[in-house]
Amino acid sequence: MIKIKPQNPKGVRDFLPKENKNREYIIDVLKKQFEIFGFESIYTPAFERLETLVGKYGEEGEKLLFKILNSGNFLSETETLELIKNYPEQTSKITAQISSKGLRYDHTVPLARFVSQHQNELTFPFRRYAIGPVWRADRPQKGRYQEFFQCDIDVVGVRSLINDVEIVELISSVFKTLNLKVEIRVNNKNIFNGLCEYYKVEEHLVSISTIIDKWDKIGEEKVYEELVKLSEFTTEKALEFITELKSGALNALKMKNETIDKGISEIEYLFNNTDVGELVYDSKLVRGLDYYTGTVFEVVSTEMQYGSIAGGGRYDNLTEIFGMKDMAGIGFSFGLDRIYDIMIDLGKFEIIPKRKKLVVLNLSNELLSKYLKLVSNFRKMGMTSELYPVVTKMDKQLVYADKKEFDYALILGEDEMSKNQVSIKNLKKRTQETYSLSYFEKPNDTLIDNFS
Amino acid sequence: MIKIKPQNPKGVRDFLPKENKNREYIIDVLKKQFEIFGFESIYTPAFERLETLVGKYGEEGEKLLFKILNSGNFLSETETLELIKNYPEQTSKITAQISSKGLRYDHTVPLARFVSQHQNELTFPFRRYAIGPVWRADRPQKGRYQEFFQCDIDVVGVRSLINDVEIVELISSVFKTLNLKVEIRVNNKNIFNGLCEYYKVEEHLVSISTIIDKWDKIGEEKVYEELVKLSEFTTEKALEFITELKSGALNALKMKNETIDKGISEIEYLFNNTDVGELVYDSKLVRGLDYYTGTVFEVVSTEMQYGSIAGGGRYDNLTEIFGMKDMAGIGFSFGLDRIYDIMIDLGKFEIIPKRKKLVVLNLSNELLSKYLKLVSNFRKMGMTSELYPVVTKMDKQLVYADKKEFDYALILGEDEMSKNQVSIKNLKKRTQETYSLSYFEKPNDTLIDNFS
Repeated sequence: MIKIKPQNPKGVRDFLPKENKNREYIIDVLKKQFEIFGFESIYTPAFERLETLVGKYGEEGEKLLFKILNSGNFLSETETLELIKNYPEQTSKITAQISSKGLRYDHTVPLARFVSQHQNELTFPFRRYAIGPVWRADRPQKGRYQEFFQCDIDVVGVRSLINDVEIVELISSVFKTLNLKVEIRVNNKNIFNGLCEYYKVEEHLVSISTIIDKWDKIGEEKVYEELVKLSEFTTEKALEFITELKSGALNALKMKNETIDKGISEIEYLFNNTDVGELVYDSKLVRGLDYYTGTVFEVVSTEMQYGSIAGGGRYDNLTEIFGMKDMAGIGFSFGLDRIYDIMIDLGKFEIIPKRKKLVVLNLSNELLSKYLKLVSNFRKMGMTSELYPVVTKMDKQLVYADKKEFDYALILGEDEMSKNQVSIKNLKKRTQETYSLSYFEKPNDTLIDNFS
Repeated sequence: MIKIKPQNPKGVRDFLPKENKNREYIIDVLKKQFEIFGFESIYTPAFERLETLVGKYGEEGEKLLFKILNSGNFLSETETLELIKNYPEQTSKITAQISSKGLRYDHTVPLARFVSQHQNELTFPFRRYAIGPVWRADRPQKGRYQEFFQCDIDVVGVRSLINDVEIVELISSVFKTLNLKVEIRVNNKNIFNGLCEYYKVEEHLVSISTIIDKWDKIGEEKVYEELVKLSEFTTEKALEFITELKSGALNALKMKNETIDKGISEIEYLFNNTDVGELVYDSKLVRGLDYYTGTVFEVVSTEMQYGSIAGGGRYDNLTEIFGMKDMAGIGFSFGLDRIYDIMIDLGKFEIIPKRKKLVVLNLSNELLSKYLKLVSNFRKMGMTSELYPVVTKMDKQLVYADKKEFDYALILGEDEMSKNQVSIKNLKKRTQETYSLSYFEKPNDTLIDNFS
């Protein structure tokens, strides 16, 4: 038999039970909060038709799409063969012949496709959430994976500043529940766009936002250098522009025009209608995507330096590419993997109360029916319980229980049986108590509460 | 702008909020029961290295693997180009050059890879569960999808008949919780194998189990016809073989040898140690995979004809292919999509109590701060609540609330405000009650209980 090296692909990760439990804890908190805020989950498949995905993520993003090979004997089709023989360098043409599906790159394009396809079955404003993996063929490196989880909420089909307020309340509620201290940075694209209008550099809006987007990474000096490289920016203009952007406070903005005013009044509306203390105005926040048209958000930890762990914003047209007009809305995405990373680093998982677990030690084949009955009773009470599956030395079973972080071990050997007793060992405190066997022979509400 | 038709790929499905909620209900029940029984979840990536997947699913299964195209300019590599030019018909060789990853086909091979790779980090016996999609490039047809959910449990690294008992208890507990009436069919591969030994047809064991596996679909007569086609089976032998297989009761088995006896004693052990009433012995149950070596299980609904909705069995060697010996265990898989289908058909979702939902109607811009405070209070009590995001006609908001199956609408217009009152409309019963506004201005435990 040929032996194969057991190895997962580069750039993707396995999660062991303990890690996965922590990740699922975050997912559970997100789900619960999303639902309390009236969001409902939908499911879209892991892969989409390639035509749904291409042309949505820019040139760089497009390269990161994972394409799925058409199944069957795709290569024997004459057309493909001719193409391969005649144009060996035209990778993209050939790819189009041998692949027609791709793994989803995010949840937003699938949402747009879903809303357009099912518009007659949905109730608008449509509040949905989606939690699941997305895939990008990025070069694997620390903190960047080819498979990672996005946890998205969107309200689609309504223009309302109330949604900005609601998103901020939700973000605050999520991070409070996760016991993470954060700053919710907010800006409005109209302020940035208006500023570009003011300086007559709207043409370079995308390049400028790309530069500003890197501010935290490259620093003010480099931002200045890159701005003056653009022919529209004199050194004076660039300095003014930067000064305005780092002004920090909304009322410190000096330049005025209609677009800027619109942005300011939308931000003011948000601040006036929420008392979430983590909310701060950040005039430098632009978020690269030109898809956002109003408020933009970003969340960073205030307990450690890490970069953004969640972000989103308001948009005017989710579904135009699919021929469905006027679908304005707001979307926000929580990065599970980044939240997980900082919670690990900050030791936040250690203080989450865990469900108690009990193992029934297997000490005698004669007592099997007793063991099965006992473990079944604990389960009926909703307690995680196991019967060790073979009779073996008590020490070995206790090592297993410790490794798996059990709280209690129930001991019923021939000795205990002869006295109609049961011992409960508290594995964390290293104490032991004796109970009457009959006490455990029926499920009852106090069965677990009384363990020391 | 080029418009794209919004359409998901053939063979995979979207799930709308209501459908998805029902599917998640099943997943939640499974997760809860798995955890109570001491199983812990792990996560493995959606794709595996192709060498992990190939050679595991037989010739037919292999064709159904979804392969992922290597990213980047794979086609410009000289070797690939030469291959394509010189051997245009050799699809498989070319595929190997342009693809090195595949979507997982089930959870079992990833488990085997995971256990082998992480053996030093795991505690054995290792009890894990995995719930998630798997992908097969099957021709799309009714009830058969290219993406479907498997919900697997396995106990790995121990040989113990107690696990058979535990699996049966778990299956019973799951389906009771789901309110589905089922039959848990059980057999033991040793009985079938022993019978084949008895008739000296062991050589054709795989072909014979494939035939017997189809019994329910093709009927006894066709099984007989196919058996006698095998040269080893005289008409007499085939008749005897069939008679033995349909005997039904364990004590009705007439043929005896060591292997058969082993199978019988293992089945007896199982029946002696559980009082699960749904358990029935089924001598015809073989489950195609030769990977199973002991007990095999299959679950069918007794409320409607559908085929198996869950199945599994005991195995001797999970990880041999990865060079890790003696990893015996037992595995069982619940088919989410099939369970969902029958629960829909039987109307089982309709009687599941749902979380109450409340919408605060948005009737005046002046009252926004009141509305926000009210909805926030309900959320703090854990009630799913929404504020309708724009001020519009009450009728329109109530239509929205009905479509989204809200239970209550909170009405606070200028009129109510002037009286410091609030009306709660019960949208299901079409009744309405008036409360003092102050009653809702702080979260309190009776806030929701008292609604009529």
